[in-house]
Amino acid sequence: MAGGDRGCHGGIPGDPALTVMNELLLAITTAPHGPKLSLAVSMFVVFGSAKLLAEVFERLGQPGIVGEILAGILIGPSLLGWVAPNEILSFLAELGVVFLLFRVGLEINPADLMRVGRAALAVGTLGVAVPMLLGWATLRLWGASQIESLFLGAALTATSVGITAQLLASRGLLNRTAGKIILAAAVVDDILALLVLGVISSLAGGTLNMVELVLSTVFALGFVVLVLIWGSRAARRVLPKLRDNVRIGEGQFAIAMILLFGLAALSERAGVAPIIGAFLAGLAMGPALPRRVHDLTQGVTELFVPFFLAGIGLRFDWQVFVHPSVLLLSVIVLVVAVIAKIVGCGLGAINYGFPVALRVGLGMIPRGEFCMVVAQIGLGLKAISEETYDVVVFMAVAATLLTPPLVNLAFRTTGSAQAPAVES
Amino acid sequence: MAGGDRGCHGGIPGDPALTVMNELLLAITTAPHGPKLSLAVSMFVVFGSAKLLAEVFERLGQPGIVGEILAGILIGPSLLGWVAPNEILSFLAELGVVFLLFRVGLEINPADLMRVGRAALAVGTLGVAVPMLLGWATLRLWGASQIESLFLGAALTATSVGITAQLLASRGLLNRTAGKIILAAAVVDDILALLVLGVISSLAGGTLNMVELVLSTVFALGFVVLVLIWGSRAARRVLPKLRDNVRIGEGQFAIAMILLFGLAALSERAGVAPIIGAFLAGLAMGPALPRRVHDLTQGVTELFVPFFLAGIGLRFDWQVFVHPSVLLLSVIVLVVAVIAKIVGCGLGAINYGFPVALRVGLGMIPRGEFCMVVAQIGLGLKAISEETYDVVVFMAVAATLLTPPLVNLAFRTTGSAQAPAVES
Repeated sequence: MAGGDRGCHGGIPGDPALTVMNELLLAITTAPHGPKLSLAVSMFVVFGSAKLLAEVFERLGQPGIVGEILAGILIGPSLLGWVAPNEILSFLAELGVVFLLFRVGLEINPADLMRVGRAALAVGTLGVAVPMLLGWATLRLWGASQIESLFLGAALTATSVGITAQLLASRGLLNRTAGKIILAAAVVDDILALLVLGVISSLAGGTLNMVELVLSTVFALGFVVLVLIWGSRAARRVLPKLRDNVRIGEGQFAIAMILLFGLAALSERAGVAPIIGAFLAGLAMGPALPRRVHDLTQGVTELFVPFFLAGIGLRFDWQVFVHPSVLLLSVIVLVVAVIAKIVGCGLGAINYGFPVALRVGLGMIPRGEFCMVVAQIGLGLKAISEETYDVVVFMAVAATLLTPPLVNLAFRTTGSAQAPAVES
Repeated sequence: MAGGDRGCHGGIPGDPALTVMNELLLAITTAPHGPKLSLAVSMFVVFGSAKLLAEVFERLGQPGIVGEILAGILIGPSLLGWVAPNEILSFLAELGVVFLLFRVGLEINPADLMRVGRAALAVGTLGVAVPMLLGWATLRLWGASQIESLFLGAALTATSVGITAQLLASRGLLNRTAGKIILAAAVVDDILALLVLGVISSLAGGTLNMVELVLSTVFALGFVVLVLIWGSRAARRVLPKLRDNVRIGEGQFAIAMILLFGLAALSERAGVAPIIGAFLAGLAMGPALPRRVHDLTQGVTELFVPFFLAGIGLRFDWQVFVHPSVLLLSVIVLVVAVIAKIVGCGLGAINYGFPVALRVGLGMIPRGEFCMVVAQIGLGLKAISEETYDVVVFMAVAATLLTPPLVNLAFRTTGSAQAPAVES
């Protein structure tokens, strides 16, 4: 299935609480049933349907990205049933979002990102706290138990930045102020998600080790700051030397790939999602890599991003439409999930004025695998019901689907989207 | 595990005998044991080790491709045990060889290929018949049963063209006469492999349906001829029209990918390996695609070919070194496998003179998954022993490893490899 954008918080080595999720994530993303398709057929069906619907949506004046997600719903188990989520599609989806964030990192100047650091810290923190609070309060008002309400709150916290990144990249908006704040805030959001996940996993594991939790957060934070500060300096020194000494064909591309996967693997070890590692790798290497490497990387990105997007749709399930009360709760939770991010993240960026704050808030709406991991842990503990699990999955897919048109609208209202470099 | 270059003879729809292999292939390429690695770690370890050893080999004046295969042996279960063959690595390996053959197809002129058609037919046919005969005779002389000797003969037949294609592509030798004969002969070889596999599978299935077998061969042949003749004409007419009407970003790349996977999927249906479909897709689209699509495709190829190459090494097993008699038989079978292709394929191309014939013979040596599928079927029928299975696997890996230095030597002896366009 999709994303993997948050899937592989490998955890600090030897942290049993955090490795629980890897197991769980695998259980979610791997469905043993469903037809076994050959490589050619599965690539044709997923890539082809995503691109076809993207084309249809573009012609209708809608974001192509929505078409690609809907393609997943269309071909997935809930409608045509041509493709079922499986381990391989899950891998390709993660590959897509890793390359997506790497590409985005390549296009961004690290110094620019540091400049919005304070706002990003506020956006990231409020963007986790407000959804947690509102999510909890909503379920309490609905009459759910304390523990179930806490799980729902936790499930609403982490943003899945891939969608917004792809949207902004495809429209040349990455270097707008709001774009940079969103990307920097996504890094903060990811580290806080590590904390939320740590607490949630410790509920599954039995005991809450506060020292370990704080240490792992500090470790993750330290890793990110280190790469941000030293990464591009190191890349500028080392890459040219390596380049001049490599004999194999397309050697620079090979070096870039090794550094990309190496940093993504290190990120996992530090407790940060691999896509954040990929983003940092892109940031660090961007200025030092030649055009050729950008082009070759673009090929991989273009091929696999549709698997990430369609993979989101593959998760969709009509289950919530069966019972009116579940449907009602789903709609309420969806509205809360959307508003909580707009308010929380928007407040964090309010110093940049209302238009930027609104764009940041809208850009942070998408949710991904993180919600499902949290809900799955809750389900495993019998802390939440099957219905609440379905509600969370519906919320994640629907919130993600709502984002592209809303973000497009917000960028259209002030200033032309065709002139990305005007602002800031 | 690796290749998939012959793995997915999907068979004529509804042919139960041929679908047996898909099951078997899956059983071979999927090992449930072995460590479960994250995306970042497995990409880092496989890609990184392959490129590192390629660099080492290039510096030693040896073909980098051998280094990449040896990397698989090094990190695989037989040595370091960092990576075990699994379904995902198998998928990436197949993706690599599909893109490799697509790229090769893009660089070849279909008319040139048709011109060596007669030689290719002789090379392909003799290249299947001679190894079959010599393999059978060798095992009979060794004292094996009739049925075991037949299975070994069958296992020696089909060439795995990926290795030679990569070797020639990396040195700019694809358009030499020998290169074109090898590629065209690989198509013939693949169709004959379908026949051999049909007979072998029918032994597993119980009955041999001659009519169905002949029909499926004719069908496969018809498909290939149809695409060869009409493909590039159709591409030249349709692609420009599609190009002018697509709105999505990198639309031409998306169209090329959809056509590539579509044709590979159709090939499977027609009983031809997906890599042959990919090769035909490249041939057909080559002249009509812009530089940009070539570059983006190259990125995917560069990223995944190492998985194909290292995947070959992952299969390696020290088992044959335990018993001296098994080792002796392995060496004998390896020598027979090498000589049979040199003689059989060489004879087919003898009209082009000895140097070309020798290059063709050497270029057709590599063996791949086909051998293992045949051996696995034999094992399932208890027609061959575990030892013979190990011998076949050893032969495939060792023959493939021997090819690059031998082919390099053959191209060096006459005419400079640096001037690819001189000959023919």
